[in-house]
Amino acid sequence: MTRLLYALAGVDTARQFSPHVWKTVMSLAHKGLDYETVPVGFTAIAAIEGGATATVPLLRDGEKLVRDSFDIALYLDETYPDRPSLFGGEGGKAMARFIENWSQSTLHMAVTRIAILDIHNLLGAADREYFRHSREERLGASLEDIAAAGRAEIEGFAKKLQPLRNMLKVQPFIGGAGPLFPDYIVFGALQWLRTTAGTRVLEDDDAVALWFRRCLDLHGGVGHHVTAA
Amino acid sequence: MTRLLYALAGVDTARQFSPHVWKTVMSLAHKGLDYETVPVGFTAIAAIEGGATATVPLLRDGEKLVRDSFDIALYLDETYPDRPSLFGGEGGKAMARFIENWSQSTLHMAVTRIAILDIHNLLGAADREYFRHSREERLGASLEDIAAAGRAEIEGFAKKLQPLRNMLKVQPFIGGAGPLFPDYIVFGALQWLRTTAGTRVLEDDDAVALWFRRCLDLHGGVGHHVTAA
Repeated sequence: MTRLLYALAGVDTARQFSPHVWKTVMSLAHKGLDYETVPVGFTAIAAIEGGATATVPLLRDGEKLVRDSFDIALYLDETYPDRPSLFGGEGGKAMARFIENWSQSTLHMAVTRIAILDIHNLLGAADREYFRHSREERLGASLEDIAAAGRAEIEGFAKKLQPLRNMLKVQPFIGGAGPLFPDYIVFGALQWLRTTAGTRVLEDDDAVALWFRRCLDLHGGVGHHVTAA
Repeated sequence: MTRLLYALAGVDTARQFSPHVWKTVMSLAHKGLDYETVPVGFTAIAAIEGGATATVPLLRDGEKLVRDSFDIALYLDETYPDRPSLFGGEGGKAMARFIENWSQSTLHMAVTRIAILDIHNLLGAADREYFRHSREERLGASLEDIAAAGRAEIEGFAKKLQPLRNMLKVQPFIGGAGPLFPDYIVFGALQWLRTTAGTRVLEDDDAVALWFRRCLDLHGGVGHHVTAA
C-alpha cells in the first residue's frame, strides 16, 4: 500500500471528525482509490513526513506528498483523469473555490462555536491542552464561553443553508445530477458537526437534510463509518 | 437584425437596471453576439411576443425564444459552442446554480430594501402603480416602510460578500483567471444597486469593489453604459 491519508484523530482514532479530512475521504472514495488512514493528533502533525505540513489532510501517493483538501482534489483529478472527475471541467474548478469560501465563512465558525467543547473532549491530554490554548487565543474567549455563545448558533444554523436549500429545487447535488467536490466541501462541515456535537440543526424533511443523507449514503456509505455523536 | 433582447425599462429607457437583464447583457457580450435591445416596462411584459413570458430578460434569436437569464446562458453556450464558454464545462453549469441561489437569497432582498423607492421613481405612471401594489403585497409593508428598513441593510451589505472577498485572495474572478456566468450573476446584483440607488456599500479598496470594477470594464466596458445613480 503506497497511498496514505494522514487524518486528524482524537483518543478514539476511528472517530474521524475533521471537516477537511472528510472532504478528502469523500474525494478518494469518489475516485475509487484505496488508501490506508494514518491517525494523527493535533500535536503530532508537525512531526509527520519530516515536517511536511502544519495541517491535515496530508496525502502520500507513492513518492508524492500533497496537503490541503482542495489541492488534493485537484491532484487526484489531474493524476487519475480516467476515474470520475471531482470538478467536471475548468469552470467547476474555479467555482468550487467560491463554494469553499462560502462554506468556510458561513458554516465553519458556527460549527466551531456549537461543537468546541465536544471536539475538546474527543482529544487526548496533550492535544486538549494545545486545542484549548490555540482556540482560546484565536477566538479571544474561554472554550466554555465560546460554547455558551454557540447555543445561539443552533437556531440560526438552518437559515445559513438557504442557498443550498433553494438550489436543491433544481438539482439533487451541487455537482448537478451527481456529486462533485463542492458537495464534499459542504458535507465536510455538516459531518464535522454530526461526528462531534451531534446537534440536530435541520428538520428531517428539510431538503438539506435529505441531501446530507444522500451524501452519507454515497460510495458504499463511507460517511456512515462514523456514527452521529 | 434577428436577435432581440427584451429588457426591463423605466422612463429613461437607456437606464438599464434589472439584475437579470444585466446577466444577459454580460452573457451576450461575453459571447461577442450582437443584438438589439427592446425596452419594456413592467406592465408591458405580458404582451410581448404573444404572451411568451411573465418576466424579462426574454431573448429572441431568429426563430427561437428563450426566457430566464440562466436558461439564456445555457442556450447561448449550446448554440454558439465556438465562442467563449460561459460555464467552462458541465461542473460549472451545476455549480453556477449554487452561486445563483446564493446571490438571490443573500443579496437580492437587501438590494430590494435599499433601492425600492429609487426603482419606483425610475418608472412611468402605470408601472409605478403596478410596482407599488405588487411589492407591497409581496413584502407586506409600504414601499416607504421597506425603504426605511433598508437603511439598516446598508451597513451590513459588505459582510454578505465575505465568501467572494475570501475567494478573491486565490483568483481574480469566480470563473478563475477570467469571468464566467457566475461573475455576471453577482455583478447583476451589484449593478442593480449601482444603477438605481447608487448607494456606496463597499470601501474603494475592498477586493469586491475591485472585482466589480473589473467586471464593469469587461467587453469594452459595457457595464459603464449606464452611469451610477
